[in-house]
Amino acid sequence: MSIRESGVFLDVITSKENPSIKLYTKLSGSKKERKNSRMYVLEGFRLIQDAIKENSAVRQIFFTESAYDKYYSELSQVDLKEVKVLIISNELGIRISCTEKPQGIFAVCDIPEPESLEKSLDAKGKYVVLHQLQDPGNLGMIIRTADAVGVDGVILSESCELYSPKVIRSTMGSVFRVKIFENCDIDNIFRCFDKHGIKSYAAVVDKNADDLRTCDFDGGCAVIIGNEGNGLPSDVSERCTKRITIKMTGHINSLNAAMATGIIMWEMSGK
Amino acid sequence: MSIRESGVFLDVITSKENPSIKLYTKLSGSKKERKNSRMYVLEGFRLIQDAIKENSAVRQIFFTESAYDKYYSELSQVDLKEVKVLIISNELGIRISCTEKPQGIFAVCDIPEPESLEKSLDAKGKYVVLHQLQDPGNLGMIIRTADAVGVDGVILSESCELYSPKVIRSTMGSVFRVKIFENCDIDNIFRCFDKHGIKSYAAVVDKNADDLRTCDFDGGCAVIIGNEGNGLPSDVSERCTKRITIKMTGHINSLNAAMATGIIMWEMSGK
Repeated sequence: MSIRESGVFLDVITSKENPSIKLYTKLSGSKKERKNSRMYVLEGFRLIQDAIKENSAVRQIFFTESAYDKYYSELSQVDLKEVKVLIISNELGIRISCTEKPQGIFAVCDIPEPESLEKSLDAKGKYVVLHQLQDPGNLGMIIRTADAVGVDGVILSESCELYSPKVIRSTMGSVFRVKIFENCDIDNIFRCFDKHGIKSYAAVVDKNADDLRTCDFDGGCAVIIGNEGNGLPSDVSERCTKRITIKMTGHINSLNAAMATGIIMWEMSGK
Repeated sequence: MSIRESGVFLDVITSKENPSIKLYTKLSGSKKERKNSRMYVLEGFRLIQDAIKENSAVRQIFFTESAYDKYYSELSQVDLKEVKVLIISNELGIRISCTEKPQGIFAVCDIPEPESLEKSLDAKGKYVVLHQLQDPGNLGMIIRTADAVGVDGVILSESCELYSPKVIRSTMGSVFRVKIFENCDIDNIFRCFDKHGIKSYAAVVDKNADDLRTCDFDGGCAVIIGNEGNGLPSDVSERCTKRITIKMTGHINSLNAAMATGIIMWEMSGK
């Protein structure tokens, strides 16, 4: 079985023992594998198209036979020249998919080299620091919201892994556009903020903290968000310039962490 | 096998063929069953405790043997007098659970009688209408946020089912506190708004619509949110008093529907 691609007939991969497929499934299922190889996976047309458009380092793309007919011509041929294209059977596509309705298009990408926080920070920028955030869906949603409201960078410290398929999927492509600093040390973050004169605001649930609505977010500043269940450790919040809170007028005083971060970014970007 | 409860020894249910367990699993898995019987299920201590605290009509509670020792005494004995308590084996608890780490406590509740929108609306209230919203996680998160920021009611029209386990779980108990109007007809919603003088704001993605940040949300008003992918149908947005939009300053002009609704509710509740 073969399929024609740029004048060349490609064999259709049917076995999950194929080395490329084995790599894909390992990267899809194992954080350790992603960490060691510095590669991760994408699934779905829109996400892969965004990755190519934003010059992410896409190394391999697998199309199922059906997906090849449907999506291949829509991808930019210029940008695809560095990419190895492989065709897999529809059955194999269903097998390696992590979604309920597989589109049959998968990719393997390089994880970008981490940028230096010290060199990359803008003294007038607006940043979000996520410290010990654990839920992949929350992380994805925060990155997507940061992309929409226009935050200058998302800084991760002891948080869940950025390149897990669930986080990547829930960013809806924003992971390729937002500047993200992975695996940052909290001490180093504060050191860099000091160096650049960036003020830090600890987001806390405490009615005595400053009201988010009256916070001016003047000049370079960063909001520090903590863990879903426990919030920020006090030794972190105490190091911040200010402590801010979302004053709630309803029956409960807690919000989902992504929602809270979204509302804070919304206020920050409007000032 | 039996367990002592209020001086009575209760048999431990071990079979999934037990009629009460069969009812639980049917209600857990089938929208049709929930609709026909007007009952739904809860899982987890915190959710069930909230339901009891907020006087929701809890009919039966199942504890696994381990959960009974751990949680029973924490539930209010006064409020439990109308509730049938059953003990099930730990194995059966794992079997009927929908979560990864089951706590071993489950309940069957009556779906409350729908309230009349016409009679219940407050002319000075702040409302959110969800029209054709489809994602259970989004619906749950919106209800939780409405509970925190203090919205007077969430009105559902052609949206996903409120009493599915996923929606209930993601409300984190807010479903028992927020006034929710289920299965409302969009024509009737507009009729009731007119009658009570409640202004309606269509949330749209359109740079020519009014900027959310400058919207005054004066007096009684409602924001109408549409479907995740398609937004509001134009025949609905055109019937609204105003069209409002979240002006985005980042790279994309779309937000997750729950995030967008949360930001709008946040603005509405602050005015």
